[in-house]
Amino acid sequence: MKVTVHRKAHFNAAHRLYRKDWSDEKNTVVFGKCNNPNYHGHNYELIVSVTGPIDSETGFVIDMKVLKDLIYEEVEEYLDHKNLNEDVAEFKDLNPTAENIAGVIWNRLRAKIQQHLQLEVTLYETPRNFVTYAGEE
Amino acid sequence: MKVTVHRKAHFNAAHRLYRKDWSDEKNTVVFGKCNNPNYHGHNYELIVSVTGPIDSETGFVIDMKVLKDLIYEEVEEYLDHKNLNEDVAEFKDLNPTAENIAGVIWNRLRAKIQQHLQLEVTLYETPRNFVTYAGEE
Amino acid sequence: MKVTVHRKAHFNAAHRLYRKDWSDEKNTVVFGKCNNPNYHGHNYELIVSVTGPIDSETGFVIDMKVLKDLIYEEVEEYLDHKNLNEDVAEFKDLNPTAENIAGVIWNRLRAKIQQHLQLEVTLYETPRNFVTYAGEE
Amino acid sequence: MKVTVHRKAHFNAAHRLYRKDWSDEKNTVVFGKCNNPNYHGHNYELIVSVTGPIDSETGFVIDMKVLKDLIYEEVEEYLDHKNLNEDVAEFKDLNPTAENIAGVIWNRLRAKIQQHLQLEVTLYETPRNFVTYAGEE
Amino acid sequence: MKVTVHRKAHFNAAHRLYRKDWSDEKNTVVFGKCNNPNYHGHNYELIVSVTGPIDSETGFVIDMKVLKDLIYEEVEEYLDHKNLNEDVAEFKDLNPTAENIAGVIWNRLRAKIQQHLQLEVTLYETPRNFVTYAGEE
Amino acid sequence: MKVTVHRKAHFNAAHRLYRKDWSDEKNTVVFGKCNNPNYHGHNYELIVSVTGPIDSETGFVIDMKVLKDLIYEEVEEYLDHKNLNEDVAEFKDLNPTAENIAGVIWNRLRAKIQQHLQLEVTLYETPRNFVTYAGEE
Repeated sequence: MKVTVHRKAHFNAAHRLYRKDWSDEKNTVVFGKCNNPNYHGHNYELIVSVTGPIDSETGFVIDMKVLKDLIYEEVEEYLDHKNLNEDVAEFKDLNPTAENIAGVIWNRLRAKIQQHLQLEVTLYETPRNFVTYAGEE
Repeated sequence: MKVTVHRKAHFNAAHRLYRKDWSDEKNTVVFGKCNNPNYHGHNYELIVSVTGPIDSETGFVIDMKVLKDLIYEEVEEYLDHKNLNEDVAEFKDLNPTAENIAGVIWNRLRAKIQQHLQLEVTLYETPRNFVTYAGEE
Repeated sequence: MKVTVHRKAHFNAAHRLYRKDWSDEKNTVVFGKCNNPNYHGHNYELIVSVTGPIDSETGFVIDMKVLKDLIYEEVEEYLDHKNLNEDVAEFKDLNPTAENIAGVIWNRLRAKIQQHLQLEVTLYETPRNFVTYAGEE
Repeated sequence: MKVTVHRKAHFNAAHRLYRKDWSDEKNTVVFGKCNNPNYHGHNYELIVSVTGPIDSETGFVIDMKVLKDLIYEEVEEYLDHKNLNEDVAEFKDLNPTAENIAGVIWNRLRAKIQQHLQLEVTLYETPRNFVTYAGEE
Repeated sequence: MKVTVHRKAHFNAAHRLYRKDWSDEKNTVVFGKCNNPNYHGHNYELIVSVTGPIDSETGFVIDMKVLKDLIYEEVEEYLDHKNLNEDVAEFKDLNPTAENIAGVIWNRLRAKIQQHLQLEVTLYETPRNFVTYAGEE
Repeated sequence: MKVTVHRKAHFNAAHRLYRKDWSDEKNTVVFGKCNNPNYHGHNYELIVSVTGPIDSETGFVIDMKVLKDLIYEEVEEYLDHKNLNEDVAEFKDLNPTAENIAGVIWNRLRAKIQQHLQLEVTLYETPRNFVTYAGEE
């Protein structure tokens, strides 16, 4: 009996979409106002979804307190109130689009969740724009 | 690395559920108050989901501004503040149930989105009733 | 000790904004696409707020079951799945703007709620447009 | 043409996480404050998702009124305002975790929904914790 | 320049509506299924609103971190995962209706917030039922 | 008959809480991680509330299209995708706390709304932190 357990979390951050190897003109054409050199920012809402069998002892797929603490350590402490471009190692040479942020979060959590459990992350950049990533198949 | 990008949109419209080839009695038995001949209406909330590889140049699956404009042109301008039965060609002989509206929206968007990208639409008729359609497999 | 008790409810309806005594041109200038002669519609969300002292016997300002049933009878049954312009007596000569619908709902409920209790209604026409009415002071 | 139809419902209930065959100490270590012997409680939000072909006669996968009534009879009347541990047969020897409640709801609905339709349930225990179950494959 | 600062918080709890000095019959007539002797429960959402002048030094009415910690200590730690009737002193002889819970929370916070600031609390018992209390004038 | 009309809008921005005339140490003690020198950011949700009599001609307090356009010009275009500290004149010497941002927005809108109408703004910095400002009485 496979069940998916979902946990919501939250962080807010500044970012800017641009490529260092492109001209200012090209960055503005492609990324528009998301390329403001002084940055803009978002409240990111995150849903972490873990799929696996129910442990017959506890009735849990994964203990929600464990999952909540893991998200806190790997995502919230790492990204909250940060400038993604300036303060976060993974984005030194990676454009912090919602797609790429979701990939970074997925990789950080994947390393800490038991291998028999599947992992998917959904990241809201705004209430109207969001992305989902479940790893390579 | 495949990611799904979601964009929310909104339109409101009047509609009525009924079949021209059925009697009034049968329409009322099957469709109840949704068959009011003077119409009723909804705020439709739409989520358009596009799945594909991340473009390594931009970090995007699809540019959200492009997707937003496409939804505006193909769905919002076409359906907003309309009477679905009277004003929209696709529903002249098709009952505008949430299922069928989702199918019409999916077809209109599918024609304009690159073929290597998968498409799914979720349509909320009310906050408690909604449908999802991802095309024929 | 005065407390306000709030109850949410829901109905959906078709309507059209226009004045019979204006020309089509003037109606279109003032009301834009809200003047579609074939109607459009909304999911209306309603919050009914009742303020008064706590009954020391029950701990209630007003019994929520009583308030819920009253809203059902006076508002939901009366307006749900209706064409406001065509099916509802109060709008035969009154433009069904959100402001006027809130006024009609307030009057219907005011007549059935004890006089020592204050009444306010908030009506969402869309998630982004809403109005509040608390009667004449 | 396969579509998924979703319907939201609501119930609230008390529960306690523990195993009768464990010591108080072990229950507290594993279940923390969820093991309060006097119970705590939640507003459970439920989404029932039914997937199948659109009926060409009606334009429905399943009539929403039928689905709404089925959820009311099998889930809301059965679980609303109940103590899950004390009042609900399925939890006499089953820990009422969100995972297990979702399984119980799925089983109750599965028995009443036509076999050619697929069924999935999503159960929110809080706005931040939720689970999804779609049956054994 | 007076501004109101609002902070949302959350707790979940079991409760039962009844009066010890009433017969079972009367309790059932007045409180219906809310009188289940085995309790039921809710996710309570709380909004705490503090009104006062902006401190010209900090730009704050009240430091949100201070307010967040105060709500945690006085409300969340005190009420979360509790049985309100059995575990909370204020409800030993007070019916834990939403109205009375709001009053108890207001009193606990009022004692810890500077007197020149006004205080209002809004308590959601369910997404559809909520109450507001601002103290005696 | 006085009614309040509310319109929701949205912008996102980067900011940093600090005072130029304070030491780094004092800024960190008072503003904590909100003082990140590289900035962080938010999705700001705004509710603009306008109170006045219903125009008997139109049934409007204020035309929602007019209010929507006014908010777009005075708030969304002015603040969206901006760094509040660096890009917005009003915050050159004013700490961009939620309280102060609400004040700036109120002033900008007040100048463009007819004097017989009352104005209140509610600004969400996060889904859990928000402020309300209605001007000096």
